[in-house]
Amino acid sequence: MKIIVDAFGGDNAPDEILKGCRMAKDALGTEILLTGRADAIRAAASRLSLDLSDMEILDCPDVLTMDDDPMSIRREKKDSSLAVGLRALRDGKGDAFATAGNSGAAVVGATLYVKRLKGVLRVCFAPVLPKSTGFFLLADSGANNECTPQMLAQFGLMGSVYVEKVMGVKQPRVGILNVGTEDHKGGPLQQAAFRLLSEEKRIRFIGNVEARDVPDDAADVIVADGFTGNVFVKTYEGVALVLLDKIKGIFKKNLKNQIAAAMVLGDMKQFKKDFDYNSYGGAPILGCSKPVFKVHGSAKAGTMFSALSLTAKYVSSGITGEIAKAVGGEADT
Amino acid sequence: MKIIVDAFGGDNAPDEILKGCRMAKDALGTEILLTGRADAIRAAASRLSLDLSDMEILDCPDVLTMDDDPMSIRREKKDSSLAVGLRALRDGKGDAFATAGNSGAAVVGATLYVKRLKGVLRVCFAPVLPKSTGFFLLADSGANNECTPQMLAQFGLMGSVYVEKVMGVKQPRVGILNVGTEDHKGGPLQQAAFRLLSEEKRIRFIGNVEARDVPDDAADVIVADGFTGNVFVKTYEGVALVLLDKIKGIFKKNLKNQIAAAMVLGDMKQFKKDFDYNSYGGAPILGCSKPVFKVHGSAKAGTMFSALSLTAKYVSSGITGEIAKAVGGEADT
Repeated sequence: MKIIVDAFGGDNAPDEILKGCRMAKDALGTEILLTGRADAIRAAASRLSLDLSDMEILDCPDVLTMDDDPMSIRREKKDSSLAVGLRALRDGKGDAFATAGNSGAAVVGATLYVKRLKGVLRVCFAPVLPKSTGFFLLADSGANNECTPQMLAQFGLMGSVYVEKVMGVKQPRVGILNVGTEDHKGGPLQQAAFRLLSEEKRIRFIGNVEARDVPDDAADVIVADGFTGNVFVKTYEGVALVLLDKIKGIFKKNLKNQIAAAMVLGDMKQFKKDFDYNSYGGAPILGCSKPVFKVHGSAKAGTMFSALSLTAKYVSSGITGEIAKAVGGEADT
Repeated sequence: MKIIVDAFGGDNAPDEILKGCRMAKDALGTEILLTGRADAIRAAASRLSLDLSDMEILDCPDVLTMDDDPMSIRREKKDSSLAVGLRALRDGKGDAFATAGNSGAAVVGATLYVKRLKGVLRVCFAPVLPKSTGFFLLADSGANNECTPQMLAQFGLMGSVYVEKVMGVKQPRVGILNVGTEDHKGGPLQQAAFRLLSEEKRIRFIGNVEARDVPDDAADVIVADGFTGNVFVKTYEGVALVLLDKIKGIFKKNLKNQIAAAMVLGDMKQFKKDFDYNSYGGAPILGCSKPVFKVHGSAKAGTMFSALSLTAKYVSSGITGEIAKAVGGEADT
């Protein structure tokens, strides 16, 4: 198996990306094809004393930054490490592509270069997020501001296949993110999606779930239009950050509190780790003809390694084919 | 000033409601007109040794519970303490109405009996919520699943008047809840609302705000359609509850941690108080021809008292008239 990796994507590129790739090559045995400025990659490897001699490099001059317009991947930034990596995947130079770069551009580029599976209406961005115990997958978290009920039903189906095959949850519970749990809740979009998902025999649809209950294990796959999903995930993150920051402030306030903090340090660290948005590595872009994985933008080597492990599982589980079958089309792979 | 109070609304009715009313009468000097079963109110007063002799009671047999369909206020539950209170307000038996009962029914009933101000397209449910420092108002948090851009613009205007006059924030910052801060972000609804609010000279519009930034003071008034607002507020609450519960678990884990907990107890209590959803008493229903205030369903006496203080300010600030002028109609009061 060969994974194509954008060496210039993310806040900590290329150093942490390269370190993560080294870990993946050593621990998983996957081949790695790096995209990015070859001279800079080699310079970083030398500085970090990293041996990259067993990885190919696809030299490309451009970098698409976090601040670039996602649409720039079509023209101005079509020779960026992100665009080149996606085209390399399309052209069969590897089995999957992973990037910690610009999420919007990754979605646009995946659709443009790698293409959707036949029958897939839209790709969706589906991060795996922590909850009180374990995790859940949110589909869609922002690739599509406007959705049809049919799109939501496909998100549920694709999310279910991914969570079962890659994340190892048997018969994952699929729910619609809504303003109440009763069947008739929400607007026309949620009501129509509810009917479609109720008729979908291949998944375990549990109906509507309230946003309030999601952090406490309401479902394994949460279906939402991209606008609502994005507001949801950003609220999730924002509230957690502010609360953890407040607690940190309390623990630093005075000597007494600092001593108390030292006494619970191990448990607090574990707690922060459990609720770390990085812990599940990122988000698959579901519905592409080949596996594309978006790694957290702030990924360091460890997260990059987790993400590459999931990307490898994304390939080996053959779920692209499963999704293709489920939506009635066929996969390229 | 006389406030009509639903003595049978909320999880802790009638005891805590009555205690809160007693506090308000004593501290604020407002007259109180109670709606509900007179015999039960008198029995509770006697049991609690509360003197209610200076409060009127409007006897009504029915109670509309939290589980009742909001639409039941039109027919089956039209003689409930909630419906009777709203009609008493309409008929001039008091200056405002406060209930800790069924939110949906309060919105339906407010529109049905008290009516909207002339020019107001829809009333909105606008809770005041805690953030890292102070509070913000969210309009709408669930009264209207489907909204037009014009409705969103009115929510911003009404919310701004309320936050300035009742909550005491000078020139409050008004922002649209969106998936990014750039001007063009969101779907057609947010984009059109952005244009309308940009042209609105009477408010301080600061553009789009990301959900991630709201807990950390992005704006004083957050504008959203009721579906998005509801998902937002419930995520806010759900994440806070799960995180606080996890921390409680850490502090109870073993003797060492319990000792640490005792050392930071005062600070943790203050922190929980700062982030308590009850601390700001509840939500005005903005756009009614007379002031209607929805108190938190779980309100105890202290919260009820805070809510009645805000209700009194809602009346004395004359903002119903201001909102009427702002939307180009006229107030009944």
